[in-house]
Amino acid sequence: MTNGGGINSSTHLLDLLDEPIPGVGTYDDFHTIDWVREKCKDRERHRKVNKTQNTADAGNLKRTQKSLETLSALAGLIDIAADWMTDMKEGICLNAMWFNHEQCCWGSNEPTFEARNKCPQWKTWAELIIGQADGPGSYIMNYIMYIFWALSFAFLAVSLVKVFAPYACGSGIPEIKTILSGFIIRGYLGKWTLLIKTITLVLAVASGLSLGKEGPLVHVACCCGNIFSYLFPKYNKNEAKKREVLSAASAAGVSVAFGAPIGGVLFSLEEVSYYFPLKTLWRSFFAALVAAFVLRSINPFGNSRLVLFYVEYHTPWYLFELIPFILLGVFGGLWGAFFIRANLAWCRRRKTTKFGKFPVLEVIIVTVITAVVAFPNQYTRKNTSELIKELFTDCGPLESSSLCDYQTDTNVSQLVDDIPDRPAGQGVYDAMGKLALALIFKIIMTIFTFGIKVPSGLFIPSMAIGAIAGRIVGIAVEQLAYHHHDWFIFNQWCNVGADCVTPGLYAMVGAAACLGGVTRMTVSLVIIVFELTGGLEYIVPLMAAVMTSKWVGDAFGREGIYEAHIRLNGYPFLDAKEEFTHTTLAANVMRPRRNEVPLTVLTQDDMTVEDLEATINETTYNGFPVIVSKESQRLVGFALRRDITIALENARRKQEGIVTSSRVHFTQHTPTLPADSPRPLKLRSILDMSPFTVTDHTPMEIVVDIFRKLGLRQCLVTHNGRLLGIITKKDILRHMAQMTNQDPESIMFN
Amino acid sequence: MTNGGGINSSTHLLDLLDEPIPGVGTYDDFHTIDWVREKCKDRERHRKVNKTQNTADAGNLKRTQKSLETLSALAGLIDIAADWMTDMKEGICLNAMWFNHEQCCWGSNEPTFEARNKCPQWKTWAELIIGQADGPGSYIMNYIMYIFWALSFAFLAVSLVKVFAPYACGSGIPEIKTILSGFIIRGYLGKWTLLIKTITLVLAVASGLSLGKEGPLVHVACCCGNIFSYLFPKYNKNEAKKREVLSAASAAGVSVAFGAPIGGVLFSLEEVSYYFPLKTLWRSFFAALVAAFVLRSINPFGNSRLVLFYVEYHTPWYLFELIPFILLGVFGGLWGAFFIRANLAWCRRRKTTKFGKFPVLEVIIVTVITAVVAFPNQYTRKNTSELIKELFTDCGPLESSSLCDYQTDTNVSQLVDDIPDRPAGQGVYDAMGKLALALIFKIIMTIFTFGIKVPSGLFIPSMAIGAIAGRIVGIAVEQLAYHHHDWFIFNQWCNVGADCVTPGLYAMVGAAACLGGVTRMTVSLVIIVFELTGGLEYIVPLMAAVMTSKWVGDAFGREGIYEAHIRLNGYPFLDAKEEFTHTTLAANVMRPRRNEVPLTVLTQDDMTVEDLEATINETTYNGFPVIVSKESQRLVGFALRRDITIALENARRKQEGIVTSSRVHFTQHTPTLPADSPRPLKLRSILDMSPFTVTDHTPMEIVVDIFRKLGLRQCLVTHNGRLLGIITKKDILRHMAQMTNQDPESIMFN
Repeated sequence: MTNGGGINSSTHLLDLLDEPIPGVGTYDDFHTIDWVREKCKDRERHRKVNKTQNTADAGNLKRTQKSLETLSALAGLIDIAADWMTDMKEGICLNAMWFNHEQCCWGSNEPTFEARNKCPQWKTWAELIIGQADGPGSYIMNYIMYIFWALSFAFLAVSLVKVFAPYACGSGIPEIKTILSGFIIRGYLGKWTLLIKTITLVLAVASGLSLGKEGPLVHVACCCGNIFSYLFPKYNKNEAKKREVLSAASAAGVSVAFGAPIGGVLFSLEEVSYYFPLKTLWRSFFAALVAAFVLRSINPFGNSRLVLFYVEYHTPWYLFELIPFILLGVFGGLWGAFFIRANLAWCRRRKTTKFGKFPVLEVIIVTVITAVVAFPNQYTRKNTSELIKELFTDCGPLESSSLCDYQTDTNVSQLVDDIPDRPAGQGVYDAMGKLALALIFKIIMTIFTFGIKVPSGLFIPSMAIGAIAGRIVGIAVEQLAYHHHDWFIFNQWCNVGADCVTPGLYAMVGAAACLGGVTRMTVSLVIIVFELTGGLEYIVPLMAAVMTSKWVGDAFGREGIYEAHIRLNGYPFLDAKEEFTHTTLAANVMRPRRNEVPLTVLTQDDMTVEDLEATINETTYNGFPVIVSKESQRLVGFALRRDITIALENARRKQEGIVTSSRVHFTQHTPTLPADSPRPLKLRSILDMSPFTVTDHTPMEIVVDIFRKLGLRQCLVTHNGRLLGIITKKDILRHMAQMTNQDPESIMFN
Repeated sequence: MTNGGGINSSTHLLDLLDEPIPGVGTYDDFHTIDWVREKCKDRERHRKVNKTQNTADAGNLKRTQKSLETLSALAGLIDIAADWMTDMKEGICLNAMWFNHEQCCWGSNEPTFEARNKCPQWKTWAELIIGQADGPGSYIMNYIMYIFWALSFAFLAVSLVKVFAPYACGSGIPEIKTILSGFIIRGYLGKWTLLIKTITLVLAVASGLSLGKEGPLVHVACCCGNIFSYLFPKYNKNEAKKREVLSAASAAGVSVAFGAPIGGVLFSLEEVSYYFPLKTLWRSFFAALVAAFVLRSINPFGNSRLVLFYVEYHTPWYLFELIPFILLGVFGGLWGAFFIRANLAWCRRRKTTKFGKFPVLEVIIVTVITAVVAFPNQYTRKNTSELIKELFTDCGPLESSSLCDYQTDTNVSQLVDDIPDRPAGQGVYDAMGKLALALIFKIIMTIFTFGIKVPSGLFIPSMAIGAIAGRIVGIAVEQLAYHHHDWFIFNQWCNVGADCVTPGLYAMVGAAACLGGVTRMTVSLVIIVFELTGGLEYIVPLMAAVMTSKWVGDAFGREGIYEAHIRLNGYPFLDAKEEFTHTTLAANVMRPRRNEVPLTVLTQDDMTVEDLEATINETTYNGFPVIVSKESQRLVGFALRRDITIALENARRKQEGIVTSSRVHFTQHTPTLPADSPRPLKLRSILDMSPFTVTDHTPMEIVVDIFRKLGLRQCLVTHNGRLLGIITKKDILRHMAQMTNQDPESIMFN
């Protein structure tokens, strides 16, 4: 781009610099990319390709499909392996070791679910080791084996992460947001991270920790996308194009995690994508849909449904029920705000104190506490996904769960779909007590679990907390309506013998509200949950709860958990959604400030190689403005430090006659020099002749807008045509932190 | 904004110009707004509001809800009135004149649908006038009355449009796209347009012309949004904020038109919105959802379903069927490309020849031809929406349509849901012949109808064409599979006695493909049609067809029908999706070119009121750069013509001592003047001190990107800090037209 130097033929014999210098135009690790330049590079490449040949798209399509199939296969594999290992904590299938509990008892002929669950092929550890199936001895044996396996899995997971791929820990979404906004973290989406994250995700889920696999699956999807983008020079060599692939990959990730392709597209659009041209919309949609369908053909959930928690409700909701739904929204908002604060405080403590030096020990302690507390309670012992499924499901005639232990009305046939509201039996009250305990346990453990050094997602724990709270509220409303159906709020719609309250719907609304409180997603969340149920009918309750949850959560702090973790880690992320509302001008933000040393600049034709090298060595800036002369201060262009260094090295090595006293010029024509002077070095080809400029009077809100929309790395500030200073992305972030009274240096770039 | 002039106190007694001058910062009709400035103004207002008071949002919410209720009520009213008037062409309900045919016969006790349709309460015109229900005489009478009513409705519609609201004609989507991209067309979204468009839409639909009401409903929704935005100063005074409301309104429009709220949001995002900050996403979603639910509570379709064409299919699709689906996609793409070319050629002829002078005559001729040809064929006589519904619906056991006249297998119970494939009866073959005629008729008439001076949408006619083609293909494949189920492509999945082909699904895929070919929508189209069926299962056939249709259509020309009409009408619309791929630089596009008169500029402190007035009168430019001095050419700022004119008038009228020889200065400090000179005029407050600048070496692709992303109106071009020229949005459009070898002047701004 802007390679104006090639037009006039040089007077010298050899002018290598008109050729592109290898390495010019690439980025260092932990640097920010320049979106405008990357997009230009791509169009340049495109024009060249169009001139020489029209590459067939069929191969690309095939490779994309392969990539999506790999992702779906991985997602299916994770599901199957995690299920198997979760059950391994309790026992093993004697006939076929590789079967999980459900598959093991599949062929069993027992009449009820209850009895089938205890089929003879499936042996608990107590049965295997001490030969007892019941009694306190066997309980203790099972308890010990449960803790042993949980500990083994967790230890293996944290060791693998620590030794092979430190980037594999956590949910990965904060980092993916940062990468998509234009930051470079090498290896974060590499093959090692992919491999280790996949393995340790299975181990972490199986260990019974309070974490989910959905967030990490988005990271896994982005790794797949990144690795497959190496196959295409178009995407591999261009950081902007690569990010388009990653946008689509994250949509595919959510799509396979929940079986919600449209929700995945909107998640990618609303939550992770930064610089999202509309043309990516179609690709995201395509990726999400293909991934979802490949996953369905693998069928890991064993129910030939696309979605993770498929539910079908038979009764509509009533206007009055909006009150408990909104209350659930308030609960979700409060939980979200509380969780973000508590988790952030804990993570900060881990970062700043000695305690953070022992990640393996931390994981072991958290695992042991989780396992010890979780085992006695059936709702915490089981897989969290299964718990959510049970809570979402309405009590049908064949349901054997103790949550459905209602006093049966003998007049009503057991096989009618619409079972009227009934008084709760003892089993329901017992279950509610256990659920309340499970709620407290989940709330506490999730705070300490999110952030430990194993792959850990937040979606499932948050949804579990919401689902438990929702189910409790739902049963309470149901019983209230049954026992007091003459109250004026109930008597409008809830007759005796009618099925008017669906506790499963409350669980779903609660799950959406809690997830909304933590992540502050809105549209995409409603659509993900809508795709789980498939009924437009329940969108209004979901919207009401999610909206309330967002409002309540925002009252305590506008950041979602991902933004909070981005800030905690000090990534240079300029949020596209947050509005800049201050009245400062560019002149207040630019460097140098008043009374500071003036800006380090290069002049276009009166510096020597020595001067240039001295400037490079004395400063640490990433780039330098080039001006006409010190007197006029009129701006010519901008040269990047990395490019200058590479060009100088290249010239010293390859170009004859370039010595320390050689004149460096950025102009198009070589300046006339005395006859005995050494050969000049021409650097116009590395000069960016179209740097972005704003005037010193430009309001910062416009400057922030330009940085966001165009994805700039830096911008020069002028006054009446003279160069005054420079504003970089980090200057803007620092300024924004100052404006909200945070100490900018303490939180950033550590 | 940038009101730097208020800082230093003036030395004069009275300095009115530090006060905001009324009118400064507003726009003329047919001008382009400056998005950056509008957004800044809004934040300014926001800060003021925040300082003084926190306005309650409850009132706003209430008013928004009212607006959406109005829209839904209008949509419902249009549906009901159009149904009633459509039926009025055939006859009238004696008992209750305000009932349509279906409602009239609702209470009838006839056993079959067939007989109920001929209930005694409903009288055809022949029965009423000549007393005969059957026979050729009555047929001719009905024919004549049908033409008479169609003609009356069409004449009334075109007269109302011509006399009261010329903007009410057409679909309105091209204009809404242009308005949302930042152009001002006063009255286009006003109350007269709303009123007349609503009335004439009913008349136009009832007249039986080949047009739909979905596109105009989006226009009606935007009118509602615009009118209600007058109630909020925040939206009324700010052109950028107003466009946020319009984005949400267009989502609500599609939502009520199809009952597809998510599709509406994506339509707004993909098709009409231009400058779409993500925060509008939630509002669009909210608006679309509330509108859909209010509409459902009004229940105009009488089936308590949210959607226009609710269908449920019982059989899955098979991989092999992708071949006919892709063929339908090819047909859709070809139809789209053909329609766009033919319609555009016809509209251009209307614009350029004498023929366009007689819009009323044109409407009458088109209506008469349509009515004469349509009456004898039952598929063209009926309401197009009903036709589409019939084509989409699978043949159930109770279906009486002649499309379902299969040879009944006596072994199969009539009440089984899954009816196996059967050989087609004579009725099906007759129906296919009539459908083929209807297809040809619709294709021809739609080309001549879209663009006449009545409200006319394209969605329904395009879908009808696709549905007819799809149903024909579907029945063909079904019969092929029945008679040749031993062919290797069929024998895998299509056993004797199985229900393997669903012709209704083919109709739906065809409808999506044809609509896709015409509009070139992708994701939003798939989602709208997906919401009609509610089954994720059929997304893959839809995607395959829509994608094929887009590829085939794009091969003949990349523009959709809306972009084509925008170009035809010469609106300054810079498409956000189209890529600029040429290698030109800003220097090639800016004005003045080489050898032209230099740029008209103002200097910051050595002009008089007389000079300024002369400059204003001699030129027609919309704005003038202000420079330090003629010698240095260094840029200070930019002043808009409208603002200068207003400020000069204001000064002459209100400020004492301002005479023709008064010095005008744009600087912060008043220049020192001789003692006897008249009082100087200070114009710093109207000066934009932060004009956008690019260097002359900036590639045009970056410039175009900046214009699109930031919504600029003009941009100044500098070289080494000196002002060189200016690029406006129209310069860019002209340049882009030149680059694609179109004559820029002939197509633009007429």
